[in-house]
Amino acid sequence: MAHSKASRKRERGSVWLFGTHPVIAALNNPKRNPQRLMIVGEAPTSLPEERLIGLNPERVSRAEIEARLPPGAVHQGVALLASVLPPPPIEVVFEATAPRLAVVLDRVTDPHNVGAIVRSAAAFRASAVILTERHAPSLSGTLAKAAAGALETMPVVRVVNLARALDRLKLEGFRVIGLDLAASRTLADALDGANVTGGARASAPEDVALVLGGEGRGLRRLTAERCDERVRLPIDTAVESLNVSNAAAIALYALSSRC
Amino acid sequence: MAHSKASRKRERGSVWLFGTHPVIAALNNPKRNPQRLMIVGEAPTSLPEERLIGLNPERVSRAEIEARLPPGAVHQGVALLASVLPPPPIEVVFEATAPRLAVVLDRVTDPHNVGAIVRSAAAFRASAVILTERHAPSLSGTLAKAAAGALETMPVVRVVNLARALDRLKLEGFRVIGLDLAASRTLADALDGANVTGGARASAPEDVALVLGGEGRGLRRLTAERCDERVRLPIDTAVESLNVSNAAAIALYALSSRC
Repeated sequence: MAHSKASRKRERGSVWLFGTHPVIAALNNPKRNPQRLMIVGEAPTSLPEERLIGLNPERVSRAEIEARLPPGAVHQGVALLASVLPPPPIEVVFEATAPRLAVVLDRVTDPHNVGAIVRSAAAFRASAVILTERHAPSLSGTLAKAAAGALETMPVVRVVNLARALDRLKLEGFRVIGLDLAASRTLADALDGANVTGGARASAPEDVALVLGGEGRGLRRLTAERCDERVRLPIDTAVESLNVSNAAAIALYALSSRC
Repeated sequence: MAHSKASRKRERGSVWLFGTHPVIAALNNPKRNPQRLMIVGEAPTSLPEERLIGLNPERVSRAEIEARLPPGAVHQGVALLASVLPPPPIEVVFEATAPRLAVVLDRVTDPHNVGAIVRSAAAFRASAVILTERHAPSLSGTLAKAAAGALETMPVVRVVNLARALDRLKLEGFRVIGLDLAASRTLADALDGANVTGGARASAPEDVALVLGGEGRGLRRLTAERCDERVRLPIDTAVESLNVSNAAAIALYALSSRC
């Protein structure tokens, strides 16, 4: 299919989302500008009618929709070309309601993992997910699918320099906790001790920045050094590590369960 | 490439594993019969020499290795054709060391999710993962990659009838706990109460079968009815559910953290 230069340019600021959940969530997000909607067979009944006005849904074949999407995409017969979400500034984290909780990813590169982390971050009421500009995936259709709609509500902040972002979080009063397999203390121990020694803070949970390193590599040295403390999850020594989205989910659960 | 009938038949009982972790773990597993090893570029230094005897590693191009693997497979330049692992009988769960912990999957179909669950099951010392014969993925290279080597040590039991398997687990003294978003009680509440009301069991954690339903569908009615109790994770009401491997990881963490 031929595309005009203008159309190609527009698509650079756009992304093909796919799958029922991500597409419905994007249509319901006023920050998204929907551009094209492709449907194979019957449209999902839960598409928001008022957001379809002027959009002219295109009835297409399976082959036509799949030509737009990555190989193996589980599209469930629906794909939406929509504007890319503008990345919010790091201040969204500072201005979030207490207890503030930032999930900081240090070179987690798999869009499935980052998407699942965005989903868990929303589930456990995190304030935002913070990624680096480079060495982190774009907010693609694959990532949005793994986030199952949560990408539309969970702010995803991009920072150029992660160490500097951690410094700012500390200045703002966040306790920066890095997950590190080599740490001697467990996350549970660290959280148990927190509100006992916290003095004035004993009555309310602290603001926390939870830092996770990339698949197979863990935290980079400069990132690890910036953490107030490093903690591990109590896994069997025969197993090298957990999947990073699973580790994030456990840590978010443990943090959200603090009283 | 032409294959003899015998070779095709042999390959049906075999599986292409890929990626450094899964291949090294499979080579170290005496239950695997390694048949072909393909390497692009330099071999990983950690390949176990004594298991390579008679295997004649094949130096191949990226295109040759990728022709054997699913599209997009993260093979890291190494692939191994090895015999499929014989599924162990359900008795491996009954004969496991205490506290026994079975992870039961009711139509979880995504091999990435099942693989990540096998990895977390190993990390949190589960006795086995139980899948159905049908409506569950095969123990493919994709699943093995997501399990990051844990497929070689974590027994994966296949049962024809899941409801009957749950009945057997109950007869064997397992407390059958189903994760269910609609449950009124949280997992933490259920576990808190367990060893208080358990009488004679108060000093040791119970044997538990943790049951998880498929992506987007949850537990089937017949499965839910077999559970001693259904519990939920305390997620935000605006989020419909967690990724199933993330939910499994959290539940396994919570179960392994019982004292």
